[in-house]
Amino acid sequence: MIHEFEPTHFQTTIGSHEPVLRVASGDVIRTWTVDSGGYDRHGNDITEGGNPQTGPFYVEGAERGDTLRVRFERIRPNRTRGVTGGLVAPNVVDPGFVPELGPRNSEDWWELDLERGTARLHDPPPGLQSLGELPLDPMLGCFGVAPPQGQAISCATSGEHGGNMDYRGFREGVVVDFPVFAEGGLLHVGDGHALQGDGEIVGTGIEVSMDVELTVEVLKGKAICWPRAEDESFVMAVGNARPLDQAVQHATTELLKLLRDDHGLDYRAGSALLGQCIRYDVGNVFDPAYTMVAKVEKALLERL
Amino acid sequence: MIHEFEPTHFQTTIGSHEPVLRVASGDVIRTWTVDSGGYDRHGNDITEGGNPQTGPFYVEGAERGDTLRVRFERIRPNRTRGVTGGLVAPNVVDPGFVPELGPRNSEDWWELDLERGTARLHDPPPGLQSLGELPLDPMLGCFGVAPPQGQAISCATSGEHGGNMDYRGFREGVVVDFPVFAEGGLLHVGDGHALQGDGEIVGTGIEVSMDVELTVEVLKGKAICWPRAEDESFVMAVGNARPLDQAVQHATTELLKLLRDDHGLDYRAGSALLGQCIRYDVGNVFDPAYTMVAKVEKALLERL
Amino acid sequence: MIHEFEPTHFQTTIGSHEPVLRVASGDVIRTWTVDSGGYDRHGNDITEGGNPQTGPFYVEGAERGDTLRVRFERIRPNRTRGVTGGLVAPNVVDPGFVPELGPRNSEDWWELDLERGTARLHDPPPGLQSLGELPLDPMLGCFGVAPPQGQAISCATSGEHGGNMDYRGFREGVVVDFPVFAEGGLLHVGDGHALQGDGEIVGTGIEVSMDVELTVEVLKGKAICWPRAEDESFVMAVGNARPLDQAVQHATTELLKLLRDDHGLDYRAGSALLGQCIRYDVGNVFDPAYTMVAKVEKALLERL
Amino acid sequence: MIHEFEPTHFQTTIGSHEPVLRVASGDVIRTWTVDSGGYDRHGNDITEGGNPQTGPFYVEGAERGDTLRVRFERIRPNRTRGVTGGLVAPNVVDPGFVPELGPRNSEDWWELDLERGTARLHDPPPGLQSLGELPLDPMLGCFGVAPPQGQAISCATSGEHGGNMDYRGFREGVVVDFPVFAEGGLLHVGDGHALQGDGEIVGTGIEVSMDVELTVEVLKGKAICWPRAEDESFVMAVGNARPLDQAVQHATTELLKLLRDDHGLDYRAGSALLGQCIRYDVGNVFDPAYTMVAKVEKALLERL
Repeated sequence: MIHEFEPTHFQTTIGSHEPVLRVASGDVIRTWTVDSGGYDRHGNDITEGGNPQTGPFYVEGAERGDTLRVRFERIRPNRTRGVTGGLVAPNVVDPGFVPELGPRNSEDWWELDLERGTARLHDPPPGLQSLGELPLDPMLGCFGVAPPQGQAISCATSGEHGGNMDYRGFREGVVVDFPVFAEGGLLHVGDGHALQGDGEIVGTGIEVSMDVELTVEVLKGKAICWPRAEDESFVMAVGNARPLDQAVQHATTELLKLLRDDHGLDYRAGSALLGQCIRYDVGNVFDPAYTMVAKVEKALLERL
Repeated sequence: MIHEFEPTHFQTTIGSHEPVLRVASGDVIRTWTVDSGGYDRHGNDITEGGNPQTGPFYVEGAERGDTLRVRFERIRPNRTRGVTGGLVAPNVVDPGFVPELGPRNSEDWWELDLERGTARLHDPPPGLQSLGELPLDPMLGCFGVAPPQGQAISCATSGEHGGNMDYRGFREGVVVDFPVFAEGGLLHVGDGHALQGDGEIVGTGIEVSMDVELTVEVLKGKAICWPRAEDESFVMAVGNARPLDQAVQHATTELLKLLRDDHGLDYRAGSALLGQCIRYDVGNVFDPAYTMVAKVEKALLERL
Repeated sequence: MIHEFEPTHFQTTIGSHEPVLRVASGDVIRTWTVDSGGYDRHGNDITEGGNPQTGPFYVEGAERGDTLRVRFERIRPNRTRGVTGGLVAPNVVDPGFVPELGPRNSEDWWELDLERGTARLHDPPPGLQSLGELPLDPMLGCFGVAPPQGQAISCATSGEHGGNMDYRGFREGVVVDFPVFAEGGLLHVGDGHALQGDGEIVGTGIEVSMDVELTVEVLKGKAICWPRAEDESFVMAVGNARPLDQAVQHATTELLKLLRDDHGLDYRAGSALLGQCIRYDVGNVFDPAYTMVAKVEKALLERL
Repeated sequence: MIHEFEPTHFQTTIGSHEPVLRVASGDVIRTWTVDSGGYDRHGNDITEGGNPQTGPFYVEGAERGDTLRVRFERIRPNRTRGVTGGLVAPNVVDPGFVPELGPRNSEDWWELDLERGTARLHDPPPGLQSLGELPLDPMLGCFGVAPPQGQAISCATSGEHGGNMDYRGFREGVVVDFPVFAEGGLLHVGDGHALQGDGEIVGTGIEVSMDVELTVEVLKGKAICWPRAEDESFVMAVGNARPLDQAVQHATTELLKLLRDDHGLDYRAGSALLGQCIRYDVGNVFDPAYTMVAKVEKALLERL
């Protein structure tokens, strides 16, 4: 079944909030998200900022110990202006270098050409006048399911439940699996970026409102610890924590478990494979919790 | 001038050791390296293990405050067997998961087909019997220049002087710049890997002896703080430290400085560019110091 | 006014839950807490474990931007048995050492002599048979106020709002100040320890139910960022984060601000004082977020 | 035998340098150290700065796998002026707070009254005019033995060999044990502080030249991994690393091993004891490597 959902209010925490819609496993949801500041497709400020989320969506049958699978069929900017932070964040440069960055009062506006799929700085700072167009690569920065114990966790950070991971790989076509902690899973989605570098180091991607279409599926009795994902080429496991070293630990452990669960590899075989074939991608290094993605090529797994 | 250099002894620290050869800026050095355990092309154990280095090479004219540029023209395995660690390292998984990894007494041997450029597990652990061939991607794991203050630093770790960075991107064709701390720069090279996943998470790549050809160049009066590099597509800056968060800080700061030095971008413009375009690659997450590479596409810089 | 409060239900998150009692600034609350596992003074398991909290208490007049001051008049174990974890936690030893710790299935019971103020292992593991009595030093491990944005945060961790800090210095007589994020402040208290080493490295102190008496006070218009505290000898600032380096940063920054706010020292003078006189105490190093306390002697401040 | 040693040159790395004196196990060495900047008792700048070390002292019979025990009989400032950094270091405050600290061009001079054992700011910054005298607590910030593999490691940092640990507890009367990595152990001493807060957070203690008397002893066949120490009240183990979390891991692991080696406690019993009785002290949080000390009361161990 396909649900067209028009949001009327938004959440700035991910938690066990009253669901806005109940859907069945296999259903499709078509909806939209405001940008991280609460602005919609018309540039109207319709809700308080802080990565406001559309949802939560209750998926029938999802219970603690299951996995909620989300396939993003469509993630498309629905307006032609986006904004980015103007300076690299203090926490991603050497502490003694911070004062050299200068005053933190700038931001940049970008013009999006949705036909051509490009972005262009509206008023480039000196030195970037000839930068021209960058190809869009739309993604969702913050989405996830209700965390355990009835917690409600700020959309500024991330955890086992997902949240503000700001990973470029969470683009159209990706499938993301979440551990279910609360009845119905309670999926939230928001924080669209038309484009973003690794790490979200200026504290933003090109922040924009989005049209989103996704399919949900409940994997009964499949228990995972951290988000997992799959795109055309890779299977992935996500770790969210600080320091990044701990995010590496979470992601690597979860990828070893994924290889065991889905491909029958014990940890000795998983080690032999990952040792020479693992790839790490950096998600957010701006938030309270940082994000690391560990992944391995599907083409390799298909040989086994 | 082209130097053919036959090493007779090796260093397991990078330091202000007696040079084995003096060369001029612009010269080419053709030499070879033993593997991380001290084994040569014939599989003979000719020196103590610990990433033994060929060198140091003294480059005439290099002085503190200059940059030593090294272009790797050739990095080629020169034997057909390589070895890898058998288990993911304890520090890259969750602390409570370590005992589940099992006993740490395994290793894997790989057959290299140097014609076809492939590697194959000699005796695959159960589950990987049908893995088949992996394409080689030869690189050097450990190389660098004498560190400041007459220090001699173990080839197990890394720092501003380079060292055991284990970055897959340091393959044939890459150009790496080092800050010069000691007269002559004193370049050391070693620790060849026929193939390696990100992070060197089993504590090794496919360890192998290598034939190496490189060109050195002194950039007089050009001062840098951390290694920088360039390949066909990217300019890069390298940070070596723990936690990985600090390696991110070093690499990001150095990349902002690179954009200022080489492309005239102030930190405000550098931020606007990197915010949406930076890429991070993970080097070593096994050593005492971890390695992070920050990079940006040359095609973008050419527009400016 | 003095309130005698009998709790009937408990919270395992700290959040904007329905208050159990409304009190005025200056009021005294006499109540009790279950232990971390949900067991009361009679050893009855009356609620789900996970540092269940008594409260929240709504303090009239407390608003975002104020400070809520809590003075602990009394923190007394109210039963004679307590439990501790049997092994040092995997995250506080070297990763490669974890398997040497052995199986994680042990715990220890302690007999408390409330008259004499001592604890004794009920069945000491071999080697500790003659350990004898340890003096009690009762404290609360987890307490705090509702966090910002309507969040509800697990009592397993900590943040700007307090939470599971497990600091030995939070004993009878201490005064702790919290930033107010929600109307009424919403104070929660729980997780009593009859005794605890630094770091809570076995994952517990001697877990016990407690009788607690405290006084609340609203400091209108006083804005702080992190918990501050004061005991007989020291003023303190608390940082909660991982890695511990970041907790050091939070605590040191807050202590510099405390010296500015309360003692008129600019950061240059604060630096000159703290440089030679600061003390750091380690709170929890077991939780998702670690705790560091920065402090300075009141006797020094009284000279200024 | 008592050696009176007059240094004529100094080392700014700790390494396998040519010994300045050979002594026997049990011998006493009376010598002096310059301050961290290379200034002697007369305030003369006699050597390059960077924590210059007196030594190394070769102790007959010390070999890899032994322990070198050093008892500090005397650590006394030998001049009446000392200097301290003027601002808290950027790495110990929140990244975004760094610019608020102001310009980093200040330092403070202190007058030492060696009779009374006190220090007084020469020209107190505004707000500290009435601070008056602080009691001296002289200590050595940087000392250690030659590290493994012939390394020479900067006196700005620390490791298994000791080095720049800046721990207040390394004062007169302390006994410090080092793992021996090189023949003769090769003890270096320097970097005296007349007084220092925890963490050395302004990058200095009160830097001063010192008269030092110490006794060396070789513990044949006793192998340790990290420095251990003992004072009147505590036995201790030291971890040096970043992040501080890793220093916690090193120190805690080493203290568990110390309890096993010297007191016959297996890790289960060691855990039961340390869980409720361990204390952590913070050494340096300014250097490339941070220092954490884990300790337990000797009075408790004497009961066993």
